[in-house]
Amino acid sequence: MTAAEAARAPRPASEDAFQRLMALCADDLERVNALIADRMASEHAPRIPEVTRHLVEAGGKRLRPLLTLAAARLCGCKGDAHVKLAATVEFIHTATLLHDDVVDESAQRRGRPTANLLWDNKSSVLTGDYLFARAFQLMVETDNLRVLGILSDAAATIAEGEVMQLATAGNLATGEAAYLRMIHGKTAALFAAATEVGAVIAGEPEPRIDALRDYGRTLGMAFQIVDDLLDYGGAAASMGKDVGDDFREGKVTLPVLLAWEAGDAEARAFWRRVIEKRDQREPDLAEALARMTETGALAETERRARTYCAEARDALAAFPPSPAREALDGIAEFVVARLS
Amino acid sequence: MTAAEAARAPRPASEDAFQRLMALCADDLERVNALIADRMASEHAPRIPEVTRHLVEAGGKRLRPLLTLAAARLCGCKGDAHVKLAATVEFIHTATLLHDDVVDESAQRRGRPTANLLWDNKSSVLTGDYLFARAFQLMVETDNLRVLGILSDAAATIAEGEVMQLATAGNLATGEAAYLRMIHGKTAALFAAATEVGAVIAGEPEPRIDALRDYGRTLGMAFQIVDDLLDYGGAAASMGKDVGDDFREGKVTLPVLLAWEAGDAEARAFWRRVIEKRDQREPDLAEALARMTETGALAETERRARTYCAEARDALAAFPPSPAREALDGIAEFVVARLS
Repeated sequence: MTAAEAARAPRPASEDAFQRLMALCADDLERVNALIADRMASEHAPRIPEVTRHLVEAGGKRLRPLLTLAAARLCGCKGDAHVKLAATVEFIHTATLLHDDVVDESAQRRGRPTANLLWDNKSSVLTGDYLFARAFQLMVETDNLRVLGILSDAAATIAEGEVMQLATAGNLATGEAAYLRMIHGKTAALFAAATEVGAVIAGEPEPRIDALRDYGRTLGMAFQIVDDLLDYGGAAASMGKDVGDDFREGKVTLPVLLAWEAGDAEARAFWRRVIEKRDQREPDLAEALARMTETGALAETERRARTYCAEARDALAAFPPSPAREALDGIAEFVVARLS
Repeated sequence: MTAAEAARAPRPASEDAFQRLMALCADDLERVNALIADRMASEHAPRIPEVTRHLVEAGGKRLRPLLTLAAARLCGCKGDAHVKLAATVEFIHTATLLHDDVVDESAQRRGRPTANLLWDNKSSVLTGDYLFARAFQLMVETDNLRVLGILSDAAATIAEGEVMQLATAGNLATGEAAYLRMIHGKTAALFAAATEVGAVIAGEPEPRIDALRDYGRTLGMAFQIVDDLLDYGGAAASMGKDVGDDFREGKVTLPVLLAWEAGDAEARAFWRRVIEKRDQREPDLAEALARMTETGALAETERRARTYCAEARDALAAFPPSPAREALDGIAEFVVARLS
């Protein structure tokens, strides 16, 4: 985490968990960063590293590659294949962000103007393609067909989830099952692959590979649900400055779905107007928050996130205590602590 | 080739070569088409097969997968790995087309409105990503790390070539070396990978793998140069209805570069105005054609294409005569015959 990012980020007590994870994997993370810097280069197309650097240096948390590193460490992995896989995971994530920003017509990412705005959509689309290809080159270098299968499956599931998201926008008939499938695609699939490949590359027995995949998947589900909840200010429905983006875009997230399902005819007319028709006026966000609070939609959304986190922590029981297990356990706590 | 496409396409004598190639690989091609139809499906995101079907059913020639099939047949390949690789190659190509149409803001492809126009840019970007991922899944199924390396390298080179193309548009200082590197990326790299993986999967000895890669690479270079030349009506500079698209977009292709290099100060002022500034008036295309003819730029472009085709045919000398060798030889002839 850069100093600037640390200053911006909320700092609950369990922020320490993230620092502990970074400290645990510090050496490996440095190797991952060096590998990323090396492989995002392009001798013949200088635009590529310019665009990538803009996003990479804005400094995401590197949460996904850290999950691969910690999973590999938990399984006693040596060598450098896990470093390559961590960089692979970050490249897939970065490529997805570049394409997401084009799809969402976003103007800001990580507190900076997006690449599609600074350069153009063309550069974002093609640089994303380049990073996808670089990701596959990196994982091929591990000589492990099983991790290639896991990560290419994840890439397909991610794209499928993103396309599902297009179809669910403004559609209150989405249903919880489709919402859960969509967030599995857009977020949990890469978390699951990130931890699973750490276990596979370490040659871990099957039950532990399953456990780490489950950990990543449930952590990812919790992470996305928390994100969706924070867009309405969390269970406390506090009106911070970043609240309401999803609302304004007519995104059908879990708080909306639950409030819609619990609503009477009058409530449904409200949701149809603001989400389906995106016919929104000044007091509508406050009214949406009130309705979400009254129906218990926000509290239920928080409960779901906490349940996924508990599942993630339970999955770690397959492993004996160790600093790596503790770090991963702390991350699961950290994800829901963003709500406090 | 569909009946509709056959009716549209020009039919030089050597069109027969393409028919011979299709006849030679008819059984395998049917399996490739079935595999493509199966793998482009998505249970949860019906938009994906809609978008893909629109492009796939418009019926490209399937030239790239046919090259993989013919190369594998030339090397006596059995089994079904080559069928998977041929479908992989077509998926990579289709994904590239979807992203290209977004990048170029194209309105037509294969005689039909483009997907970005019928749906939206979002669907084209994300469906392209899905097809890339499906391509990687398919090639992982071949259990052959070497072909994975070849195809992921090709995917990176393609994206790099596309980004280079952004930088060369309207830039007369591009230079021939950069032009050749760019068309290697955007076209020849996939042709080369298509034929190389056919040989690798057949377990062919190295010199023959090299020969088939060289065949694909030089064929691809010729293919793109012929395309660039046909955009100016070929060496005869005939003003057909499809002439001048590259000119209007300010693309710096070989005919433009050669005319620019051969031009005096007055000629250079013309090229700067029409290509760099894209300040174009009604008679400018005709003047460009006249200048390209006078300087010999069109004739020289044709000579280069024919030289690459001759290299492609020479590469086949590594193999004893067979129907597959004859079919590949005919394709090299077919590519330049489009100029007659």
